[in-house]
Amino acid sequence: MSIRVGIVGISGFGGGEAMRLVAGHPDFELVYAAGEGSAGSRLADRFPGLPAKLAGLVIEKWDPAGLPPLDLLFASLPTGASAEALARVPQGVKIVDIGGDHRDAEGWAYGLADIWPGRIRGQSRVANPGCFPAATLTALAPLLAEGLIEPGNIIIDAKTGISGAGRGGASSGFGYAESNENLVPYGLLRHVHMPEMARAIERLGGGSAAGLVFTPHLVPMTRGLLATIYCRGRASTAQCLAAAQRFYAGRAFVRVTETPPQTKWATGSNLAFVSYAADPARDLVIAMGVVDNLGKGAAGQAVQNANLICGLPEARGLEGAPVWP
Amino acid sequence: MSIRVGIVGISGFGGGEAMRLVAGHPDFELVYAAGEGSAGSRLADRFPGLPAKLAGLVIEKWDPAGLPPLDLLFASLPTGASAEALARVPQGVKIVDIGGDHRDAEGWAYGLADIWPGRIRGQSRVANPGCFPAATLTALAPLLAEGLIEPGNIIIDAKTGISGAGRGGASSGFGYAESNENLVPYGLLRHVHMPEMARAIERLGGGSAAGLVFTPHLVPMTRGLLATIYCRGRASTAQCLAAAQRFYAGRAFVRVTETPPQTKWATGSNLAFVSYAADPARDLVIAMGVVDNLGKGAAGQAVQNANLICGLPEARGLEGAPVWP
Amino acid sequence: MSIRVGIVGISGFGGGEAMRLVAGHPDFELVYAAGEGSAGSRLADRFPGLPAKLAGLVIEKWDPAGLPPLDLLFASLPTGASAEALARVPQGVKIVDIGGDHRDAEGWAYGLADIWPGRIRGQSRVANPGCFPAATLTALAPLLAEGLIEPGNIIIDAKTGISGAGRGGASSGFGYAESNENLVPYGLLRHVHMPEMARAIERLGGGSAAGLVFTPHLVPMTRGLLATIYCRGRASTAQCLAAAQRFYAGRAFVRVTETPPQTKWATGSNLAFVSYAADPARDLVIAMGVVDNLGKGAAGQAVQNANLICGLPEARGLEGAPVWP
Amino acid sequence: MSIRVGIVGISGFGGGEAMRLVAGHPDFELVYAAGEGSAGSRLADRFPGLPAKLAGLVIEKWDPAGLPPLDLLFASLPTGASAEALARVPQGVKIVDIGGDHRDAEGWAYGLADIWPGRIRGQSRVANPGCFPAATLTALAPLLAEGLIEPGNIIIDAKTGISGAGRGGASSGFGYAESNENLVPYGLLRHVHMPEMARAIERLGGGSAAGLVFTPHLVPMTRGLLATIYCRGRASTAQCLAAAQRFYAGRAFVRVTETPPQTKWATGSNLAFVSYAADPARDLVIAMGVVDNLGKGAAGQAVQNANLICGLPEARGLEGAPVWP
Repeated sequence: MSIRVGIVGISGFGGGEAMRLVAGHPDFELVYAAGEGSAGSRLADRFPGLPAKLAGLVIEKWDPAGLPPLDLLFASLPTGASAEALARVPQGVKIVDIGGDHRDAEGWAYGLADIWPGRIRGQSRVANPGCFPAATLTALAPLLAEGLIEPGNIIIDAKTGISGAGRGGASSGFGYAESNENLVPYGLLRHVHMPEMARAIERLGGGSAAGLVFTPHLVPMTRGLLATIYCRGRASTAQCLAAAQRFYAGRAFVRVTETPPQTKWATGSNLAFVSYAADPARDLVIAMGVVDNLGKGAAGQAVQNANLICGLPEARGLEGAPVWP
Repeated sequence: MSIRVGIVGISGFGGGEAMRLVAGHPDFELVYAAGEGSAGSRLADRFPGLPAKLAGLVIEKWDPAGLPPLDLLFASLPTGASAEALARVPQGVKIVDIGGDHRDAEGWAYGLADIWPGRIRGQSRVANPGCFPAATLTALAPLLAEGLIEPGNIIIDAKTGISGAGRGGASSGFGYAESNENLVPYGLLRHVHMPEMARAIERLGGGSAAGLVFTPHLVPMTRGLLATIYCRGRASTAQCLAAAQRFYAGRAFVRVTETPPQTKWATGSNLAFVSYAADPARDLVIAMGVVDNLGKGAAGQAVQNANLICGLPEARGLEGAPVWP
Repeated sequence: MSIRVGIVGISGFGGGEAMRLVAGHPDFELVYAAGEGSAGSRLADRFPGLPAKLAGLVIEKWDPAGLPPLDLLFASLPTGASAEALARVPQGVKIVDIGGDHRDAEGWAYGLADIWPGRIRGQSRVANPGCFPAATLTALAPLLAEGLIEPGNIIIDAKTGISGAGRGGASSGFGYAESNENLVPYGLLRHVHMPEMARAIERLGGGSAAGLVFTPHLVPMTRGLLATIYCRGRASTAQCLAAAQRFYAGRAFVRVTETPPQTKWATGSNLAFVSYAADPARDLVIAMGVVDNLGKGAAGQAVQNANLICGLPEARGLEGAPVWP
Repeated sequence: MSIRVGIVGISGFGGGEAMRLVAGHPDFELVYAAGEGSAGSRLADRFPGLPAKLAGLVIEKWDPAGLPPLDLLFASLPTGASAEALARVPQGVKIVDIGGDHRDAEGWAYGLADIWPGRIRGQSRVANPGCFPAATLTALAPLLAEGLIEPGNIIIDAKTGISGAGRGGASSGFGYAESNENLVPYGLLRHVHMPEMARAIERLGGGSAAGLVFTPHLVPMTRGLLATIYCRGRASTAQCLAAAQRFYAGRAFVRVTETPPQTKWATGSNLAFVSYAADPARDLVIAMGVVDNLGKGAAGQAVQNANLICGLPEARGLEGAPVWP
């Protein structure tokens, strides 16, 4: 099957990773690429290692009214820039929005594909989760589903590689010399991913997530995201691991490990790793979730969602093992 | 004043940093250096940038019974290796033990110099705190002292640069290619620094620290340590900052900042940075502490302790600003 | 077609990358994995992100006399460790030796696949080039083939990521803290890759390479290799680029670029990038070659060689675009 | 002695390092700081680890006509921005220009302090060398002075940490995610430091440097610079080392080593390391020079020059050992 694919936001990290995955997908054909900063360039000028068949494609200025015939569009635009523009895309074009504008929007499925694939199949508009929610919710879902932790008392201490701050970031203080050898907490008590996580926790856990605490940190690495999550509950480590094994049985992209997961395990892949350490005597469950923030945290999840809405096998084009070391 | 100084454990990162600081200290004269791996080498073979006056000193095999006349000894030995050996050092030699064997030992002062200088002055044996306790306790002390948080309900999520894992670590899995671009949680629920922190919290806070949770992470950077600490309490951010300003008024090495501190602020210095973000509505106080794990977390604190027990001004030889970027 | 594949040296970086590529190759089935350090473990214990079908394979102790039925063996052993052992592998098993023992050995083709594919097809024993020769010779071959530079007057200044030093390296001084933020020249005037490069230059250029100079450097990055090569010749930049375009016309893995190539362009791929800058007035040609030292410099090239000797399309299993950023 | 010091360009990396060194200098008192991006901020807002005595100084908008009474001014401005402005600084204020505008200007001494201190003492205007020339010329000077190499046939392959690209760089493509794990050659055949090096080589070597080749590379590290220099000559390694030992006898900041120098040896210091490897049979001398690009390559050298023109001991305030690891 040949599905005509477009990508808008090709100059950003999420859009670039979407292009890499589309280029390697057996059923996708990239026919349209748009980006602000790079309009007019050939793809090969921006991505010198791209397969030869794509090298000559010219990057266009983004214009939702002037699209070529497309079956599927990946959008990776800054927050606030996609809501209006995507409304103008013809209804016949399926859309996966990697950006943040539609995660609570009517008519859009929330694309947490490993947890709610059934809500995504058959839709034509999917809003990809944020990278922090992807790691966090994948780790928490089995515990919430089985009532092993209290939804109202969750502390998320999350750490992301710097590509998570976006490419525009380079001019806003994420230069190499300032960021290297530096670990930076930011957005305390007010990060934009908070409400998205609270909504999903409530849906998964059947109770208010009003007590949610979320602290992100920037780590001096390019890719990778770890959420270390402190919960209240009386389950043992073995019970938590077993719950996750049950929850993700037969699912392709979530690995449950006894060893605490490391970010490098996921680099370049669509995998998520979850693990748990609990101390019932202290009413404590620590859940851990690892993803590549550009993989399961962005473009990998987007392709998985695209497979679901296009009626393809869920893992098509996403089978590659992580790059290590 | 010229104080004759020895350092044992010169091949490790803590011992090496002690040597750098001793070399730049106006009242210290390095007359003895010992190390397992490097015995027989000249100091300049190991540390090519050392001041010329020290270049020719030959590294000895460590033998507590065969010391030259010394006033002060810095010991930076692996855990378990110093208890017996340091007992054989003549009583007239003052000792600062950077290693972990004497932090709860009789006859040894616990060298948390910014908080309890009065317990250190006049002593001849000081046990340096671990790097995680140094950052954590510096951030928590003002809150515990004023009763702004509950001592029994503290979660420490800590992140350290890889030099904190020690130099022997290189052979134990901390190779560059495996560690770069990798973030690793470890030692969950059973890290060796736990009891040390619990004891100090109880001493500071007047209540049991039985609920203490501590999760360390290895971050792909050489130096730097951040503790993000989740506490229960009803203080506001402003109240926490004010408490810290009061607690550290007139102290040389602790900086209270409104912005969340970044590890690079401390690189190469003996500084500690603390900050706070609180949400009384959720009964939440987040305390943050940043140190250089080899500075305030090891050799910097050791020199500060040495100044205190030698009757020197506390900041002597430690005035240099951090290296940035 | 299903080709039964074995890999020996699975614990090293080259063997690990071979496994990643074999796992994603549509015609290869991994049936045997051997490694010193990891014998007895399941593959998934070492490589948690491996495809599920391979997770349960148990790593064996390497024994050339006790192999299961195999069609193809990749060997990635330390220098000196493969000559005798591979002689005991049954003749019917094709071998690609990623290690250094057979690059000048009788009965072994030299596997510089982008330059001499015709010498590799139909063989059953191929010796993979070293990572430095791979980058260097790919950049020089077009110039030597057209007589644009003197073979006797070549200076190679090469820079490699630290995975090029091998995994055993972690215990031999390549710890993270020592290697990070450090650039290290080594092996001056006596690196083991010198004779291999001199032989190939002579074969390509028809003259003595006795004047060859080669200086490798370790760069604080995991993957990536750049050779900056200073030659004598009167060609212009445009003439050099045109010669390379002709030489590599129709070849899948070599990209000729006008911009000086950057190592990150190749990460995770089997690509090589070459470019040139010349100043005829100074009799100067600068050639540049970039590869991923574990891709085209090791496992990627090995799979390309395996495709050639197995009668498969040369690019099978190697089409993926580089990982960026 | 208390010398009133000003710094202009405080927001850049060179100006920031100058401030760190001035803050620790026993005879300097910082009374004026100016910078474009940060005017109006207190110094402590920009540099949270600064000594308390400087924390409250307010950064001014740079105005050469409105300076407070100063004895000495360090200028670290972008190329092209200092020539006119510094002409308006009162004659009584000594100036060390870290930027590039005065390196060939009348009335300005060229501040290669380890080589030509006699030309600097007694002057009131000194132009600091560039970072590449500092490393290169320090390595070459002894060989040129004794006629051991040909001045007309020198190839410089240089590698610098990314702070060498300047802080404005963050917005110009030196973001963390793009620069990490990336090695980039740039400015081939036309780097701005070429004429400066050619002039100095001719002055040192008594012959034309018309054949000079210079290729800089950006290395993914914050600080550090290595020049690997390929020369023609018949001297042995031992003769080169001996020449350097003679040339730098009694000089404080140049270390001659038998082992090839590593960039980390110099981090945070004003040291330069030089070494040599020669093969008379091939008419080859490889010279190597290592500096911290912000130390000897910028602010360290600037303070050394300031000491010389202020009549202070040359090493005053620069005695600290490098930071390692």
